[in-house]
Amino acid sequence: MTTPAVAEILSWYASETPGTRANLARMLNTGRLAGTGKMVILPVDQGFEHGPARSFAVNPPAYDPRYHVELAVEAGLNAYAAPLGMMEAACDVAVGELPLILKTNSSNSWATAKDQAVTAGVDDALRLGCAAIGYTIYPGSDAFFDQLDKLRDLAAEAKAVGLAVVVWSYPRGEELSKDGELALDVTAYAAHMAALMGAHIVKVKLPTAHIEQKDAVKAYDGLDTSTQAKRVAHVVQSTFAGRRINIFSGGATKGEDAVFDDARAIRDGGGHGSIIGRNTFQRPRGEALAMLGRIIDIYLDRDTDGEAIPDQPLG
Amino acid sequence: MTTPAVAEILSWYASETPGTRANLARMLNTGRLAGTGKMVILPVDQGFEHGPARSFAVNPPAYDPRYHVELAVEAGLNAYAAPLGMMEAACDVAVGELPLILKTNSSNSWATAKDQAVTAGVDDALRLGCAAIGYTIYPGSDAFFDQLDKLRDLAAEAKAVGLAVVVWSYPRGEELSKDGELALDVTAYAAHMAALMGAHIVKVKLPTAHIEQKDAVKAYDGLDTSTQAKRVAHVVQSTFAGRRINIFSGGATKGEDAVFDDARAIRDGGGHGSIIGRNTFQRPRGEALAMLGRIIDIYLDRDTDGEAIPDQPLG
Amino acid sequence: MTTPAVAEILSWYASETPGTRANLARMLNTGRLAGTGKMVILPVDQGFEHGPARSFAVNPPAYDPRYHVELAVEAGLNAYAAPLGMMEAACDVAVGELPLILKTNSSNSWATAKDQAVTAGVDDALRLGCAAIGYTIYPGSDAFFDQLDKLRDLAAEAKAVGLAVVVWSYPRGEELSKDGELALDVTAYAAHMAALMGAHIVKVKLPTAHIEQKDAVKAYDGLDTSTQAKRVAHVVQSTFAGRRINIFSGGATKGEDAVFDDARAIRDGGGHGSIIGRNTFQRPRGEALAMLGRIIDIYLDRDTDGEAIPDQPLG
Amino acid sequence: MTTPAVAEILSWYASETPGTRANLARMLNTGRLAGTGKMVILPVDQGFEHGPARSFAVNPPAYDPRYHVELAVEAGLNAYAAPLGMMEAACDVAVGELPLILKTNSSNSWATAKDQAVTAGVDDALRLGCAAIGYTIYPGSDAFFDQLDKLRDLAAEAKAVGLAVVVWSYPRGEELSKDGELALDVTAYAAHMAALMGAHIVKVKLPTAHIEQKDAVKAYDGLDTSTQAKRVAHVVQSTFAGRRINIFSGGATKGEDAVFDDARAIRDGGGHGSIIGRNTFQRPRGEALAMLGRIIDIYLDRDTDGEAIPDQPLG
Amino acid sequence: MTTPAVAEILSWYASETPGTRANLARMLNTGRLAGTGKMVILPVDQGFEHGPARSFAVNPPAYDPRYHVELAVEAGLNAYAAPLGMMEAACDVAVGELPLILKTNSSNSWATAKDQAVTAGVDDALRLGCAAIGYTIYPGSDAFFDQLDKLRDLAAEAKAVGLAVVVWSYPRGEELSKDGELALDVTAYAAHMAALMGAHIVKVKLPTAHIEQKDAVKAYDGLDTSTQAKRVAHVVQSTFAGRRINIFSGGATKGEDAVFDDARAIRDGGGHGSIIGRNTFQRPRGEALAMLGRIIDIYLDRDTDGEAIPDQPLG
Repeated sequence: MTTPAVAEILSWYASETPGTRANLARMLNTGRLAGTGKMVILPVDQGFEHGPARSFAVNPPAYDPRYHVELAVEAGLNAYAAPLGMMEAACDVAVGELPLILKTNSSNSWATAKDQAVTAGVDDALRLGCAAIGYTIYPGSDAFFDQLDKLRDLAAEAKAVGLAVVVWSYPRGEELSKDGELALDVTAYAAHMAALMGAHIVKVKLPTAHIEQKDAVKAYDGLDTSTQAKRVAHVVQSTFAGRRINIFSGGATKGEDAVFDDARAIRDGGGHGSIIGRNTFQRPRGEALAMLGRIIDIYLDRDTDGEAIPDQPLG
Repeated sequence: MTTPAVAEILSWYASETPGTRANLARMLNTGRLAGTGKMVILPVDQGFEHGPARSFAVNPPAYDPRYHVELAVEAGLNAYAAPLGMMEAACDVAVGELPLILKTNSSNSWATAKDQAVTAGVDDALRLGCAAIGYTIYPGSDAFFDQLDKLRDLAAEAKAVGLAVVVWSYPRGEELSKDGELALDVTAYAAHMAALMGAHIVKVKLPTAHIEQKDAVKAYDGLDTSTQAKRVAHVVQSTFAGRRINIFSGGATKGEDAVFDDARAIRDGGGHGSIIGRNTFQRPRGEALAMLGRIIDIYLDRDTDGEAIPDQPLG
Repeated sequence: MTTPAVAEILSWYASETPGTRANLARMLNTGRLAGTGKMVILPVDQGFEHGPARSFAVNPPAYDPRYHVELAVEAGLNAYAAPLGMMEAACDVAVGELPLILKTNSSNSWATAKDQAVTAGVDDALRLGCAAIGYTIYPGSDAFFDQLDKLRDLAAEAKAVGLAVVVWSYPRGEELSKDGELALDVTAYAAHMAALMGAHIVKVKLPTAHIEQKDAVKAYDGLDTSTQAKRVAHVVQSTFAGRRINIFSGGATKGEDAVFDDARAIRDGGGHGSIIGRNTFQRPRGEALAMLGRIIDIYLDRDTDGEAIPDQPLG
Repeated sequence: MTTPAVAEILSWYASETPGTRANLARMLNTGRLAGTGKMVILPVDQGFEHGPARSFAVNPPAYDPRYHVELAVEAGLNAYAAPLGMMEAACDVAVGELPLILKTNSSNSWATAKDQAVTAGVDDALRLGCAAIGYTIYPGSDAFFDQLDKLRDLAAEAKAVGLAVVVWSYPRGEELSKDGELALDVTAYAAHMAALMGAHIVKVKLPTAHIEQKDAVKAYDGLDTSTQAKRVAHVVQSTFAGRRINIFSGGATKGEDAVFDDARAIRDGGGHGSIIGRNTFQRPRGEALAMLGRIIDIYLDRDTDGEAIPDQPLG
Repeated sequence: MTTPAVAEILSWYASETPGTRANLARMLNTGRLAGTGKMVILPVDQGFEHGPARSFAVNPPAYDPRYHVELAVEAGLNAYAAPLGMMEAACDVAVGELPLILKTNSSNSWATAKDQAVTAGVDDALRLGCAAIGYTIYPGSDAFFDQLDKLRDLAAEAKAVGLAVVVWSYPRGEELSKDGELALDVTAYAAHMAALMGAHIVKVKLPTAHIEQKDAVKAYDGLDTSTQAKRVAHVVQSTFAGRRINIFSGGATKGEDAVFDDARAIRDGGGHGSIIGRNTFQRPRGEALAMLGRIIDIYLDRDTDGEAIPDQPLG
């Protein structure tokens, strides 16, 4: 039966249909974190973003779309997100077991605009048996309004048929400096706008302590932003006082310790989990499984590397 | 990952979308029978058929729609089937955990025709997060052609959005005697027609050894129909040589031993499971759970009453 | 490239789209009769009409929907016709090789009206990769007008998406005696009405020499109806002077010689082929293949039983 | 250029689109009667009504759908009307030359109700290049309201795409005696209702002098109904004071003189022409052409048989 | 019956409808390569791209759209691809025999943007009897996102009605040098994106050993790209580990030996075939047939010029 942690989360979505809540529940009740209210999701859209060789050459079995679904099931993850073709080629591998998130827009390395193309639809999500659609927005880009228009249409259609909506919110554009894209104020604002668009799950990158917007500096006066966990806590607060599922990524491939530190910060800051792509499939399978196991342990508070936690106390 | 038993069953549905296969898999992978290819389903449409007091007075907690969902989850069943209002009132109880089958037509005690009204639609099934729609046909009734017309429309719509289709096939009408409704030839024909309509799961009543149709007597010459298991085997054969999921009910409330004998016969005859309503919710909760537990044990071949099996050898 | 025989037939359908002509061509260019302008088609809707045991008990492998598709391919037939569920369960067996005709309406032994239910649609035919839809009408029955209304809608929809339309025309009803259902005048009228409805392929039963309609007796004065071939020739003439594909069945299972005589009569009368169900699948596989091979030989004028042809001279 | 006669007729249809007026003009400007405001139309739906042998055995070339189109062109007629299959099989013969009227409903000899089935649609008429749809109503039959409902839908659809609408109005039913079906009051009423339904061309049978309705007797007091021409004039008056095209048929095959007398009466009574089926295609081709030539001469006032006209003076 | 090679390929498309699989099978089971899992396709869209004289003046019979269909049939190719008008003008030539791919977008020499116009739709493909739609994308161009939006809609519509989807992926745009358009990394990326969009068949140009993207250089470290076959193998790997049909063209007209070397490299690298336009129709008919015959022999491993193969060993 539904655990208190999951029941609490589902109560935030009382305005949605039981179908949408059921699909959120399926994601929350799958894998090793089932019932905890925490999630670890594997997204594989690197092929679109950076091309196949930069994504998979370091770990050639990952060229096969089935590899990722099998890995996600074996690692005990909550869900798997991918573009249309990847999903079509592998959705039967763990049929009915692993909740699927169909990415409905995508960008690529050669894009001449800070935008994404709509590459799949709600009808695709239904025929492929997905639990949710995913959609990326670029707050700050010239294309942002148009992206919101399209998101509104896709999200409304998804909710009408009982699917959940996951929004990746990545600030970029003329108004933002390179550092600004990861600034705390910018990240919080980006998460807030995703929630305002009706996203059920909001995905942002872990923020730095930088404050980008001059007009916002005063508002951040007095807020302790010294640790990652505290910055996560501010983003969570900015996402409807924590009443929306908030998941984080850490960006480019990096050392394992950094990955684990990220997970601890997310946990300690009250985030709902990690979405972790390149750091997963760009390692050999065994290493990836070990790393994901350790991350899940962190969310389960079975973190064996006790020293790390004192480093990140929540003020 | 998908077990060989479930993979074999899903291979029968290769013409359907991954969404429909995923919903079949969800039913097959839920509860204590998960992965075995066998199913026990709880249907509660007695209220429509016979009114609330005749259905629930013997066990008053059953008046509450949530009672049944909780019972099905606790007993480790595969799915729960109910009409629209029951589903709306309880679908959140075990949200995302228990696959739901929305009955889309229903009859009642005061009906003036051997027919059913369409009482729910595919859009309801999606917004309530159901895995399948259910539909009852009455082969032999004046309304049968009209029922098939409507089933064709509902089934096509359901398949297009990735839902599964469960058909209850209950022969009745001018051409059939009372005994004929449970006759072996009639039951096999009823199961076959449900499969011909594109049902993914076919539900019939356990047949007697009676042969109703004069024109069919010769065809049954030489077929051993002496045991329930053998009769189940013939119905399974009549349902596309066993390439469709075939589940059985035993009819009116009866003694526990009869219920267990039914389950053994279904198992030994190659049926895929039991659908068991009144015999469940018209017993006190504890008794019901014990009985369902024992039935599931039978399908798991953990039948502690070892003597029963030799009583039902398949020739 | 298209043979003269096939090109001549396709020229009759110049008002249809290339898609519909292509699907007619696919049927005419498949199997051992490819390119001859003749067809032998296997229909399996006996399960709906008479139930599974009466249909398949005599040859149990035929319970499996895949059996029939494999048989049709091995025998070198032109096409296979079946209801929705049968087609869903076996359409992948000879994927893309054997043209499929989806029967879109069906009756059954317990029907209380001389009617059929619509059991499949044009969308089903497309998703299952069929070349044509099939539809049965009962000229003379109370339901006939309603059947034509529905046929008109299905046929218009099929033609718009490039499918072919096959109409089974079986007279029955109050106005016709039992003998009358197979009468020559009645059969010719039934074939004519199917053609008037826009059928591309018209299927009737082989007619007797009986003239049923009093008002028609005079019109048949002087027409030689003494042989089956001559009666076939009149039906063909009644089907737009032979400018529509006209195929025939011989009815109930019977001796092989009768089946071969039928084929010779169809050939000599200018019919386009045989549709042969029970006589095929109710024999053991080897016998069925031998019989179908001989029938095809007859259409190829490789009839080894030379004596039979002189018995059926066309005056 | 448009003649005064045709311009006058088109002015009656000012509320219709130019497309519909253009299709009326195409019929009025085709054949030997082009520009005169008069029409002779060949309808071939006898095959549906009476079966192929009763329709065509007397003149076997008429079994071929192309025969009729060729005949209509050679005779210099204004238009050709036929059901769907006949039209599909022959519409290419005189493509773009002969205006086509697609009959969209049909009855048959075995019908158990005084009704017709809808057998073609406006989409068919467009794809086959027709100028108009045709539709038959049976005022007085139980099915009349339903027929009007369907006519309203078809006519509205036809007008929206610029097609003309021809209505055959044939009274029959419980309330009418056999003689009453051709009664003057009944025919006038039937023509009026067709016009009220929005028909552009109204087709009725030539009326007798009988008055069927008791309530109507008084209204006919003092009206001279002694000649066919005077009765035609009353029907024309009843059809919006002659502001709708009104064409007549003479019923069953009969002697040539009777046919010519009919044409003279239609002409003298102010009718717009003849629709003449069986009397055409049930004669040998040469005879039919001669007869049609003579009828057209009558409408052109080049009636060589001068004696006939004084016989039918309009009082 | 389906060969193991074709069955293996069809298994990659398990998420599609039987209709789509049947159309893929029709392409794989046509021509001299039927059943081998290899394909040679003739595309004729040069007229749109470069104008008629530059396309056909060198071989004037090629101005006639029927020329190409006849050539493809005579050469025993698997399919023919062309824009709407070419298809309408010739689809009846080999009706039902040669699978047709309707190109649904096209560019031209005077285009002011690196884009294509949508020039045909799924409804066109159905009415013309096509097995697939074709669509070209320009990864890297300003119009790329818009092209993907439109491809998503066309592909979803095509899949819903059982058609296959072929995507031509041609990198071009500001971010790419002229050499870069054929670079190995760029080609692999272009093929990958086509697969991600849900293409069933991916068509790219044979890549050079150049690596265009600075960020990708490291990923190609250690990959042997010294032969064409090895480069083909990398593109195939990049297209879902070879689980999508991957076909190649060699670009501009060139000597025969180069064409044969290309085919050997595609074969040895695990590609599924050649798409060869200008090199076919810009030669005299006899030469073209000889050349296509030799290419097919190469795919059949009946390569008579044995010396060529050792030149292209797969590392």
